[in-house]
Amino acid sequence: MVRPGGRSARVQTSVHTAVRELEAELGRDALTVPLVAARAGVTPSTIYRRWGDLQELLSDVAVERLRPETPPEDRGDLASDLDAWAEQFLEEMASPPGRAYIRDALLGDPDGDNAGQCSAYAAEQIKVILARAAGRGEPTPDVETVIDRVVAPIMYRILFRPAGLDAPYARRLVAGLLAATS
Amino acid sequence: MVRPGGRSARVQTSVHTAVRELEAELGRDALTVPLVAARAGVTPSTIYRRWGDLQELLSDVAVERLRPETPPEDRGDLASDLDAWAEQFLEEMASPPGRAYIRDALLGDPDGDNAGQCSAYAAEQIKVILARAAGRGEPTPDVETVIDRVVAPIMYRILFRPAGLDAPYARRLVAGLLAATS
Repeated sequence: MVRPGGRSARVQTSVHTAVRELEAELGRDALTVPLVAARAGVTPSTIYRRWGDLQELLSDVAVERLRPETPPEDRGDLASDLDAWAEQFLEEMASPPGRAYIRDALLGDPDGDNAGQCSAYAAEQIKVILARAAGRGEPTPDVETVIDRVVAPIMYRILFRPAGLDAPYARRLVAGLLAATS
Repeated sequence: MVRPGGRSARVQTSVHTAVRELEAELGRDALTVPLVAARAGVTPSTIYRRWGDLQELLSDVAVERLRPETPPEDRGDLASDLDAWAEQFLEEMASPPGRAYIRDALLGDPDGDNAGQCSAYAAEQIKVILARAAGRGEPTPDVETVIDRVVAPIMYRILFRPAGLDAPYARRLVAGLLAATS
């Protein structure tokens, strides 16, 4: 539907940029659709037509920001790769901006597409780690098991039970997963 | 702060009841603070003072509805009790009303108190099941492990990865947990 490099893509880029700039300058709560439209150089109706409302726009921007920027680090074995990835995932998602993006992604997302995209980002990173391990001949769990054992507890606790979210917790989740795998 | 049986408790009851009645009669999207106030026989400012806005009120109502009404069933052994509880938990939370309450509980809850209460409800039910099993002399995992292994994957998938949420999935989570425990 969105033609890359076309007008639609240019509008998305300028509107997302306007949201990030205004958020940094004025803070989250000051954002309004007319303000974002003026900064982006589009009409408010363009934003309403495309995003519905501010909450859905903020959800799209949040998902963009939750997109991993680099492939997971290769430390030479599955346990080290998963430890490093899980620690970084927890650190990023549990940080104040991470929590705000997760909330925004969920709140302006009645149909669940953006939440699904957040989960797909994590699954893609995990698939890279598992494919590397399989290439080394290491026994590997499947990706859905890693989601259940490592990603789900971290995300559940961030949203519902925020105590004790530290690097040792992430490593305990990975150790428990691999004990069941090998 | 809220004196049980006092005015504050009466206001809460009448406002919560008004929300549930109007939701049933007019649907979620038709709710407004003045409408709820009129039905509850309070002033809108009473609602704004106590709840802040409609989203925070809906979050409180949602948490009330997510409160378990009965203790978990006693089927005579830990595996059966956890299977039955996890299946029912998944069925209730993944249902359309369950999903709507979870969303409401999270959305109108900037400080995370209501989300924490949802998690506390699940933890209380699990503690009852584990205490019973310990009384029978069965080996039992600790409650945080049950949260990580059973509750977290179900809630994560409801919010972020909704495919394949069925009773066999709940039982697989419980079986995996108990295989690691015994």
